[in-house]
Amino acid sequence: MRKWVYTFADGMAEGSAADVALLGSKGANLAEMSRIGLPVPPGFTITTDACNRALQDGEIPQRVREQVDAALRHCEIMSGKKFGAITNPLVVSVRSGARVSMPGMMDTVLNLGLNDETVEALSEQSGDERFAYDTYRRFIQMYATVVMGCDHALFEDILDAARENAGASRDNELGAEELRGIVKSYKNAIQDDLDETFPQDPKEQLWRTVEAVFKSWNNPRAATYRALHNIPVEWGTAVTVQAMVFGNSGRNSATGVAFTRNPSTGENVLFGEFLVDAQGEDVVAGFRTPDPLSIVDDKPGASMQERLPEPYKALTSLANDLEQHFGDMQDIEFTVEAGKLWLLQTRAGKRTAKAAIRIAIEMANSDVISRQTALMRVDASSLDQLLHPSIDPDAKRKIIASGLPASPGAACGEIVFSSADAVAAKAEGRDVILVRPETSPDDIQGMEAAVGILTSRGGMTSHAAVVARGMGKPCITGAGGMRIDKHNKALVTGGVMLRSGDYLTLDGNQGQVLEGKLPMVDSELSGDFATLMEWSDAERRLKVRTNADTPTEARVARNFQADGIGLCRTEHMFAEGERSNIMREMIVAETEEERRAVLDRLMPMQRSDFIELFEIMQGHPIAIRLFDPPLHDFLPKEEEAIRESAKTLGIDSSKMMRRVEELREINPMLGNRGVRLAICFPEIAEMQTRAIFEAAILAGKKSGELVVPEIVVPLVAYNAELEYIRTRIDKIADEVMASHDQKIEYLVGCIIELPRAAIRAELIAQSADFLSFGTNDLTQTTLGISRDDASTFLSTYLRKGVIQLDPFINLDVEGVGELMRIATERGRKTEPELLLGITGEHGGDPTSITFCEKLGLDYVSCSPYRVPIARLAAAQAAISKKAG
Amino acid sequence: MRKWVYTFADGMAEGSAADVALLGSKGANLAEMSRIGLPVPPGFTITTDACNRALQDGEIPQRVREQVDAALRHCEIMSGKKFGAITNPLVVSVRSGARVSMPGMMDTVLNLGLNDETVEALSEQSGDERFAYDTYRRFIQMYATVVMGCDHALFEDILDAARENAGASRDNELGAEELRGIVKSYKNAIQDDLDETFPQDPKEQLWRTVEAVFKSWNNPRAATYRALHNIPVEWGTAVTVQAMVFGNSGRNSATGVAFTRNPSTGENVLFGEFLVDAQGEDVVAGFRTPDPLSIVDDKPGASMQERLPEPYKALTSLANDLEQHFGDMQDIEFTVEAGKLWLLQTRAGKRTAKAAIRIAIEMANSDVISRQTALMRVDASSLDQLLHPSIDPDAKRKIIASGLPASPGAACGEIVFSSADAVAAKAEGRDVILVRPETSPDDIQGMEAAVGILTSRGGMTSHAAVVARGMGKPCITGAGGMRIDKHNKALVTGGVMLRSGDYLTLDGNQGQVLEGKLPMVDSELSGDFATLMEWSDAERRLKVRTNADTPTEARVARNFQADGIGLCRTEHMFAEGERSNIMREMIVAETEEERRAVLDRLMPMQRSDFIELFEIMQGHPIAIRLFDPPLHDFLPKEEEAIRESAKTLGIDSSKMMRRVEELREINPMLGNRGVRLAICFPEIAEMQTRAIFEAAILAGKKSGELVVPEIVVPLVAYNAELEYIRTRIDKIADEVMASHDQKIEYLVGCIIELPRAAIRAELIAQSADFLSFGTNDLTQTTLGISRDDASTFLSTYLRKGVIQLDPFINLDVEGVGELMRIATERGRKTEPELLLGITGEHGGDPTSITFCEKLGLDYVSCSPYRVPIARLAAAQAAISKKAG
Repeated sequence: MRKWVYTFADGMAEGSAADVALLGSKGANLAEMSRIGLPVPPGFTITTDACNRALQDGEIPQRVREQVDAALRHCEIMSGKKFGAITNPLVVSVRSGARVSMPGMMDTVLNLGLNDETVEALSEQSGDERFAYDTYRRFIQMYATVVMGCDHALFEDILDAARENAGASRDNELGAEELRGIVKSYKNAIQDDLDETFPQDPKEQLWRTVEAVFKSWNNPRAATYRALHNIPVEWGTAVTVQAMVFGNSGRNSATGVAFTRNPSTGENVLFGEFLVDAQGEDVVAGFRTPDPLSIVDDKPGASMQERLPEPYKALTSLANDLEQHFGDMQDIEFTVEAGKLWLLQTRAGKRTAKAAIRIAIEMANSDVISRQTALMRVDASSLDQLLHPSIDPDAKRKIIASGLPASPGAACGEIVFSSADAVAAKAEGRDVILVRPETSPDDIQGMEAAVGILTSRGGMTSHAAVVARGMGKPCITGAGGMRIDKHNKALVTGGVMLRSGDYLTLDGNQGQVLEGKLPMVDSELSGDFATLMEWSDAERRLKVRTNADTPTEARVARNFQADGIGLCRTEHMFAEGERSNIMREMIVAETEEERRAVLDRLMPMQRSDFIELFEIMQGHPIAIRLFDPPLHDFLPKEEEAIRESAKTLGIDSSKMMRRVEELREINPMLGNRGVRLAICFPEIAEMQTRAIFEAAILAGKKSGELVVPEIVVPLVAYNAELEYIRTRIDKIADEVMASHDQKIEYLVGCIIELPRAAIRAELIAQSADFLSFGTNDLTQTTLGISRDDASTFLSTYLRKGVIQLDPFINLDVEGVGELMRIATERGRKTEPELLLGITGEHGGDPTSITFCEKLGLDYVSCSPYRVPIARLAAAQAAISKKAG
Repeated sequence: MRKWVYTFADGMAEGSAADVALLGSKGANLAEMSRIGLPVPPGFTITTDACNRALQDGEIPQRVREQVDAALRHCEIMSGKKFGAITNPLVVSVRSGARVSMPGMMDTVLNLGLNDETVEALSEQSGDERFAYDTYRRFIQMYATVVMGCDHALFEDILDAARENAGASRDNELGAEELRGIVKSYKNAIQDDLDETFPQDPKEQLWRTVEAVFKSWNNPRAATYRALHNIPVEWGTAVTVQAMVFGNSGRNSATGVAFTRNPSTGENVLFGEFLVDAQGEDVVAGFRTPDPLSIVDDKPGASMQERLPEPYKALTSLANDLEQHFGDMQDIEFTVEAGKLWLLQTRAGKRTAKAAIRIAIEMANSDVISRQTALMRVDASSLDQLLHPSIDPDAKRKIIASGLPASPGAACGEIVFSSADAVAAKAEGRDVILVRPETSPDDIQGMEAAVGILTSRGGMTSHAAVVARGMGKPCITGAGGMRIDKHNKALVTGGVMLRSGDYLTLDGNQGQVLEGKLPMVDSELSGDFATLMEWSDAERRLKVRTNADTPTEARVARNFQADGIGLCRTEHMFAEGERSNIMREMIVAETEEERRAVLDRLMPMQRSDFIELFEIMQGHPIAIRLFDPPLHDFLPKEEEAIRESAKTLGIDSSKMMRRVEELREINPMLGNRGVRLAICFPEIAEMQTRAIFEAAILAGKKSGELVVPEIVVPLVAYNAELEYIRTRIDKIADEVMASHDQKIEYLVGCIIELPRAAIRAELIAQSADFLSFGTNDLTQTTLGISRDDASTFLSTYLRKGVIQLDPFINLDVEGVGELMRIATERGRKTEPELLLGITGEHGGDPTSITFCEKLGLDYVSCSPYRVPIARLAAAQAAISKKAG
């Protein structure tokens, strides 16, 4: 006979913690606690299978009913009470419990089994009429709303009126007489509302409640939650029926929540709060303020330790047992009934990143868990909180706008509306927040000068977002609710108008724009954090490189112990100051000779850029991407700016205007850039190649460390493109090496950022020494989505549930990932040892890193401030893979 | 022993026409002609293998030399002459010959074997000193340039001087004495130029010539030609050595070229020209004008028929034999030596499309070839020439600009620079050419009014090109050399300035812009053409649908017997007149209610569009694509136009300005369009769906013919997108069917135009009744190339040989095609009978159609005027596939 119901009581249980799929996490943990002898009220759990069957059949199957009846009898025996009896009646809770915690999504009913007769029995037995009717009142209210479908407000109104009549400010100030009246009013209200009588038969109460809890698995709230968290509908929920213990039965009773360690700091002390003479819901409801468990200085005499010393001692000891048993910090629900401690639930406790690290390391150090388990315990993404300064948690926030959390950390400063203003303010030693509709390469200096960046347009991978992450500066993009009034230099948002010089604080972790100057707290990367990184490095197979274009970024990444540079975007080197003028001169030049002459002036600058990077990276590999963006990126767009620029360069403004017009593109993302530009104007790539090889040789001579440059060709679709450029690179390499009379090793490869390149990887691998997946552009082309324009519809998609994750943040494993799989398979068919990496934003995303580990890539490359995240995520991926 | 050399002579040959890979097409056909007893001078062919071996070894292998010596002896015996002998010397030609004809790419030497002694023997034997020295002079000249590497001008100068001295206007007016002098001067010139003596040893002449011809396989000219025509370098060239017959030995001798049928019209008469007393090169050189073979009225007494009646009779008879034997129209080179006819080469003759059709059909009708073979004989692409009016071939052209041949046909009219002007001129009955930098949906009416379209920007798949092809109007795009001066309404190109009202003629087949008004000739689609189509339909498996958006296009396509509409783009229906205003109203509306109210006004218009299309297509399937382009396409862009439009709509212009700004996209191709728009604003798709179903029911009721609409969802990347829309479509279908109390069948599917959709076809096929490959956008996304911006670099790619074919014209089989293969395989894994089609521009390209047949698609869909091409190409693909 199939087993649908599992009992537990008093040191015995039919299930255990291993049965989480069948009993739900709550049911499994109750079974486990009971099994190891902890004080758990007797009860039983109806399985998730029973739920599925019931939902399918539209009713609870007879076999299930029979087993529930038997389990209920068992519960009666173990509790010494009888369900529905008019002496010593058994009162139970009926609680939902899925495989993973879905807090508040499904339904629960407490105090079930009470009716007009059993409430009298409870009253007599407890000698506390007020308690009995308070409990009955609670039950009717819950049952009516959860099972019968009444409006909650109906009961709140009655309760409010009763409180007013009695002049009571809290529920527990109401006397027995008032509560009797409330019970009567409740029942009348139900009759009026539904034309149905509140059921007096406890069995009917039970069956209808179990059915309602089953059905709550499919309520809209739960369905949305499941969709968001990828929880399959097939899992179903279990239902636990358990004898009630009453925290609301007098001054010697209580209910509370305990964490075995401090969930904010990780400190190894019991932490939590409780309420005397209350049921669990009261702690949540917030009418009364709970008191601390342990003695605190500022609330003498309030703690459980002082008021209920025996149960407190028992709780301390049991907390320790539970943590040892489950091997993790526990979040425990307990009730004290007439001085006796009962445990109602235990689960792994939620905690801050800081606490997670400390707990994991201390538990591993005291051999409760292995180092691998400790690493798995820390959410890699959460490290972001620790890597940047953050707003003092105690500061009072006034949110005036919200946007995308494009780059983490926090900053505050005076508002400026142009890069020029930012640079000027910086020169005067002022901290500024650069506020722009969106940023372009023209804003690089301003972004460099600012402490934070705020834009009204753009997404998580807009120019502002990508550059700010590289710089490690907080940035909020797409703050659509605010309007920038360029003429008056003002920012209008949330009814507030702010002007240049007004203070603003950005919370880049949450995408909040806050008014005024809030206090900050610093990041801390030593101690436990350093240990965590050390342990990660011992486990991971994937190398973690960084995407770094500037010496500053490279230094930050080396400080985070990046294994090299996976992507150095050289175009940013041309966006600033004098260079941008030389660049414009090159672009408007009309012949190859003219262009070469201008490029000759850029070459020494490029060379010194590379020498500096090679020196900072101390022999770690550096992959340098040849010039990628379309040329028009470097030209001004508006007529006035064109005229001004032409004047600066001393050329005819109509000529410049014509060139701007010629270079205009309808879809620049798919235009003349990357290798296409290199084939149309090979002189640019040739200048860069020369600079790279000369720098490599010079830096190598200077430091004595061997430099192995990796040259990355962008936007390759055809193998012939790579061949075309590679021939030229090899030729220049030979020339430079001959002229310096020194041979060096070097690699030439390309980015796989177009679907065609992925599909043709078998051929491309014949000409490439390495391939790196440029998943930003590969996502754009595979999905046909321009990341600059995506925010309008992707937000709608997420809202309507068409997609669950933003593919520019979490790698689209089924689409883009499948192309990566094909490319990996085909590329390694040609060259089994082919060096493979990922350099898109996904290189710093833990779930994407897990996928890269599965694929067998050699490295991930991410923005400097994500290097620690990637190191931990790579370790976790390796551990998971080993575990199968 | 490996056979390197194959002899032929006098009714005997070691090879045959089947040995084309080994002997080249020339050698194989000479062997075949000799084998069937035709008068071919004796000779032998050195194989392509020998060529490859020699090129590899750097010299002619000894075994090859030995076999050449033996073959030369055989040739001596068969000709009764002796190589290098001072009496009756054998003189030979040495000609290259690859597997396919590569006209003029490789080298040839005639009259080899002559030296200072043998020339005297030739003189004595022929009794014609002038002839002997003319022949010797020709040999020295050819040998010195081809083998020794002298400059051709060297000899031209000497010849010019001699002619001037002698007062002769033609070579054959020079006497023996002058020719002797020329020979001497030639030899001196060689000595001076190279410090080397012209070789007197005939064997040395032979070996060096054979070696030179081998090497000419790798000359740059030939290498480029091979690359352009996909000819593998491994094929090599054969070399044919053959006894000379002398067309230059007097008035009873001649040389000429004959076609067995007229290559222009296909008429079954001998056609060609000849020169008396000349060698082959003279016909090509153009110093003398050749005469016709058969009697013509305007040149009495000039024809070969009159002047050399016996050889003419022989030629007529042999031409007939050759055609019967080879089963195709032949292009024959012949020489008459002293009254005797010799054949030197035969091959399938090149012909016009018109001739190709007539010849194929007449040959099949007289059972020379099968109908299948007849179909394979016509180049499907060439039908384009016949489907549109064309410029009178005799008209004198003055080309003033060149661009891309974006839409075929020819037209002439007055220049207009705006759509408004075009419409106005049309109203006055004038033919106009619309000249624009590029076109947009705003220009549709102007394009409709014009007889041809010319743009200075854009490629083969730009808006102008696509729309013009759909309309069947000639169009030239990307005519970059011309400049449009909007202010002065003038067109400046090739030194000419044309103004509004000046006449222009467009040759859309060649992309030529011609000055003035040139005469036209009409297309002809009956007779042979109709027969060809009928035979095609009997062979093809693929259905041929059309891409048609308007009743006009649909009618054209039905006239060409399209099997339905594969893609009806509904957005064009909103681009015109009043509807465009309603559309703008909808776009600026701020709430869903407002939008729905406006859409309600559009619905009846859409419904009547569809009713008309359903009626025209008479029950053939019609796939209607839901609204696809981004909304900003429908809004004006410039400030003034925005203000004007706002005024027309009676709304605040700042509101409209704001909406334009909000909708602006950086990469509109990858922006909020297609299914994305339908998910953001489901009301648009819902209105269209309602219109489709109401139209289907109404049209069905009216005609009694069942209409099965196919609804096409564009730009799907995720299955969930299709699901989202499909649910709404099904709901509306139910509503409409219920309200009309009639059930109809319908299909819902999507376009595979994003790589992700191709990869995920297995899942998408669960929700789609059909998939159509939108290879325009699929090419853009797979290759990451915006077709609007591609012309700058794709032309460079083609010029530099990075790619051989434009992927927007010929399907990129290795990239885009591989994704199609994956999608087909995965889609049919879910649903083996899944309906699959192609609707991109490639649907009308014969090589792409061949690929679609291989993939096993169900239909191709192309612009109306390409339907006949696609029908033939589909037949050819089916025949080829059957042949394996």
